[in-house]
Amino acid sequence: MTDIRTTALKTPVDVAHYLFTRLHQMGVRSVHGVPGDYNLVALDYIDKTGLKWVGSVNELNAGYAADGYARVKGISALVTTFGVGELSAINAVAGAYSELVPVVHVVGTPSTISQRDGMLLHHTLGNGDFNVFADMNKEITCCIAKLTDPSEIASQIDHAIQQCWLQSRPVYITLPTDVVQKKIEGNRLQTPIDLSQPANNPEKEDYVVDVVLKYLLAAQRPTILVDACAIRHNVLKEVHDLIDKTGLPVFVTPMGKGAINESHPNYSGVYAGDGSQPEVKEHIEASDLILSIGAIKSDFNTAGFSYRTSQLNTIDFHSTHIVVRYSEYSGVHMRGVLRKVIDKVDLSKLSAVPSNKIENQVKQNEDSSEIITQLWFWPRVGEFLKENDIVITETGTSNFGIWETKFPKGVTAISQVLWGSIGYSVGSCQGAALAASDDGSDRRTILFVGDGSLQLTVQEISTIVRLGLKPIIFVICNEGFTIERYIHGMGAAYNDIAQWDFKDIPRVFGAKAGNSKSYQIKTKTEVNNLLDDKGFSAASVLQFVELYIPKEDAPRALKLTAEASAKTNAKE
Amino acid sequence: MTDIRTTALKTPVDVAHYLFTRLHQMGVRSVHGVPGDYNLVALDYIDKTGLKWVGSVNELNAGYAADGYARVKGISALVTTFGVGELSAINAVAGAYSELVPVVHVVGTPSTISQRDGMLLHHTLGNGDFNVFADMNKEITCCIAKLTDPSEIASQIDHAIQQCWLQSRPVYITLPTDVVQKKIEGNRLQTPIDLSQPANNPEKEDYVVDVVLKYLLAAQRPTILVDACAIRHNVLKEVHDLIDKTGLPVFVTPMGKGAINESHPNYSGVYAGDGSQPEVKEHIEASDLILSIGAIKSDFNTAGFSYRTSQLNTIDFHSTHIVVRYSEYSGVHMRGVLRKVIDKVDLSKLSAVPSNKIENQVKQNEDSSEIITQLWFWPRVGEFLKENDIVITETGTSNFGIWETKFPKGVTAISQVLWGSIGYSVGSCQGAALAASDDGSDRRTILFVGDGSLQLTVQEISTIVRLGLKPIIFVICNEGFTIERYIHGMGAAYNDIAQWDFKDIPRVFGAKAGNSKSYQIKTKTEVNNLLDDKGFSAASVLQFVELYIPKEDAPRALKLTAEASAKTNAKE
Repeated sequence: MTDIRTTALKTPVDVAHYLFTRLHQMGVRSVHGVPGDYNLVALDYIDKTGLKWVGSVNELNAGYAADGYARVKGISALVTTFGVGELSAINAVAGAYSELVPVVHVVGTPSTISQRDGMLLHHTLGNGDFNVFADMNKEITCCIAKLTDPSEIASQIDHAIQQCWLQSRPVYITLPTDVVQKKIEGNRLQTPIDLSQPANNPEKEDYVVDVVLKYLLAAQRPTILVDACAIRHNVLKEVHDLIDKTGLPVFVTPMGKGAINESHPNYSGVYAGDGSQPEVKEHIEASDLILSIGAIKSDFNTAGFSYRTSQLNTIDFHSTHIVVRYSEYSGVHMRGVLRKVIDKVDLSKLSAVPSNKIENQVKQNEDSSEIITQLWFWPRVGEFLKENDIVITETGTSNFGIWETKFPKGVTAISQVLWGSIGYSVGSCQGAALAASDDGSDRRTILFVGDGSLQLTVQEISTIVRLGLKPIIFVICNEGFTIERYIHGMGAAYNDIAQWDFKDIPRVFGAKAGNSKSYQIKTKTEVNNLLDDKGFSAASVLQFVELYIPKEDAPRALKLTAEASAKTNAKE
Repeated sequence: MTDIRTTALKTPVDVAHYLFTRLHQMGVRSVHGVPGDYNLVALDYIDKTGLKWVGSVNELNAGYAADGYARVKGISALVTTFGVGELSAINAVAGAYSELVPVVHVVGTPSTISQRDGMLLHHTLGNGDFNVFADMNKEITCCIAKLTDPSEIASQIDHAIQQCWLQSRPVYITLPTDVVQKKIEGNRLQTPIDLSQPANNPEKEDYVVDVVLKYLLAAQRPTILVDACAIRHNVLKEVHDLIDKTGLPVFVTPMGKGAINESHPNYSGVYAGDGSQPEVKEHIEASDLILSIGAIKSDFNTAGFSYRTSQLNTIDFHSTHIVVRYSEYSGVHMRGVLRKVIDKVDLSKLSAVPSNKIENQVKQNEDSSEIITQLWFWPRVGEFLKENDIVITETGTSNFGIWETKFPKGVTAISQVLWGSIGYSVGSCQGAALAASDDGSDRRTILFVGDGSLQLTVQEISTIVRLGLKPIIFVICNEGFTIERYIHGMGAAYNDIAQWDFKDIPRVFGAKAGNSKSYQIKTKTEVNNLLDDKGFSAASVLQFVELYIPKEDAPRALKLTAEASAKTNAKE
């Protein structure tokens, strides 16, 4: 049946053309996914719309890669096939929801007529129900768009992408095989999708600004604490302007790492309650007003809910509301409020108590042994990092260790402190490195992953090789799941892993001689020599570093957090 | 808070002890999964209850392995952690649901009090909703048991395991961290779970039997066609008795392969419509009565819905109903009906037309070239197989090629013809080989997987190595996704894969010298030499065979089915 409306279209374009063109307009340049017969015809449009197809080795890895890509590039796209493909990726999509990462997930589905007739097709549950998988996505995406009616499709796509961007969360789009080439109005592509944040009610905004200023000017020791949602909801310009203007000391949470230029004179360290450095803890907890921007006070982000701060001394800035002490102001976005606070604050009345300067404490944490310790290693990494590096840390010792690493300017930090899916970082590394490459930049991508976590997603190194990406991958070889050991089962066999011959992994996964280098590093001297080596630092090929740290060594913050988790788990 | 009822328990046992003891009673000996902090304390009970923990490299692989284990051992168990772990496994669980495989999925969750308080914990969506993931399982499991109230838990566990067994489908059990060590009544463990199938209504059963017999005795050319649900619902004893007594020719569908002793004189081949061998197609389609036992008439099981049989000539036997021509008899299980048909059939009035004898057609499919062809290879495999082998084929050329392989007696065939998740077979191979080992048998496990599919789950070879399992793994190296090429995009780059150095994979994943052998096989002569080699055939170590077949070579049935799929996909 030909759609009679086709004849009325001014510039007919195929649905897949429209969709991928929109993604291109959003800044996407590479599309992650795995081919499957329900998405193959759609894949033909990727090249045609100026995009590049990245076939990952599996859908979970592709989902993680899309997450990493979005964190660098602003948004990303993932294409899977019905049932088998999308379900393999669903953990990655849920992670993007949890961690507020905008990923457009396009699922190729059986044709509308097959669905209507309940055909007994492969990749189905065999019961004629084609809605099960979309239903699973309802609570882990912020918009579901099932493309069926050509007259609706363009607005469905635009709305989904808009919501993905504004809410900074994944959306789910089903593209049936017979819809891929349906004609829709292409003229609409001349007008970009409206991505403007709805403005706050000006009266309400002014009211909140006055309240904020009142408390800010009355405070003796105000501080700024920056968390994940400042990054995800794009208020970093406002945050930096606030710091520059007020000269207030600024701290970040673990999930807020990378939000702030850590070489800024006001940067004062990572606050995570009892998991903080003593001087950081002291300064924040002695503050009589914390401007808390974009907080996510999760267990792992607060070293086991160990904040010793009072809500009476806190103003929380969020994308949907502001909380001043216990007064809540809903429907107000932090961006407008922050901008006006910056504009209006009277510096002559502002009291700013400087905090301690933060440095990478390498010498202080050195001991006489050549054994590499977590305590020593992470500050040492801080000396190695360069401006604009992309630093990815895996859930485990790396995610806690990185708290002790002071970054140069412009570093992007990627981790999953809230969702915490082990294996995430390897896929994410591919996506992040590709995003940097798509931007034409020479930013280095540096991954820290444990030997246990690496095993879940190791074959994504194959995609890294295939794409010619050049991340530095540090594999912390400590014989299994150290974070779990500290929660329960220090010596339990279930926390052990198989011992692999790591150094040959890039080669087995396709790296040719000269395109990758592998290193085995077992002493502090070897670490120093490697990190000081200009060739290594130049990152001109994929570099794969086995780094041996004893299995019961863990960052102090991890030990505290794990102990708190074990207690929470046992609580009746 | 101490449960006051504890004092009234005769033999108090911990919840985890009860659960794992029940699984042991069901025949489970190894438990698959990945450790995570919400399941660690529960894992301590695995050893104590006589079970073995198999930490897979990731949850999807663990889920596939549990599926394979259940297909050999009758039932299996999978343990994951909340959110991240369970979602990584969900594709495997959905596959088990689709393909009717009984897997008990136990998910370690945050404590009941953390859930009640909506705590902002890691592995959550950050919104205090702890029900999202259980809700996702509603349509892909046949029972959900959330263990919270100690007075209910034993019956919840028993009911879930019972339904898993009777419906032959996965069940989902949540085990909060604080519930693991709650005390419940252990005396109940003295009584096994009731696994008896509810008997049919005798009057109705007799009625159906009479109808079946009437048509059976009236038929001139009756045949038997055995499909997947005959295996899944355990009526193979009845099927074999029916064949032995009646002497009727018996065919299997692709999903029914392995149901029948293919060396039985009545065995007549694989029927899949136009995808069948000509003499098979001719015999079945000329039959005036097909006793169709446990049919799943899905696209890939019927070579694209290409049956040329009439419902007027068909009696369908199912676990929940019987259909004679167009008359439906609901609520009747095939087992009772088949047993009475066997008992009552009057052989003197039964007409049985013999069919052609089926052999592995190796010579007939040989050509003068040394290039290995799909046409030649699969019958050649038939000559190599031994009694009681376990044969696993991946979705792709292997799943279609195996139609041309006649099995010896006792072969178990494992594949996912309906769900068709690529990568499944590698995990499943681990589980199947382990199940055979747990049974103390020396059955060989032989896997056929394409190079594209292998990449998704390749690291499960590490678990195979760690467990000391000795499968023979044939990797069909044909440069990517041949099945997709035939559906769409024969030369498209998205159907290509990265080229790996396959032969070193076992070693990289931990195999020591002498514990694995790798082979590169590129000619028919090399295939013959390898398959005739007694050392190879003895399968005393893990053997990994790269088998090179041209990328555009595919079994005839695959080409037909792919063509039909492409048409279905495009249909408006």
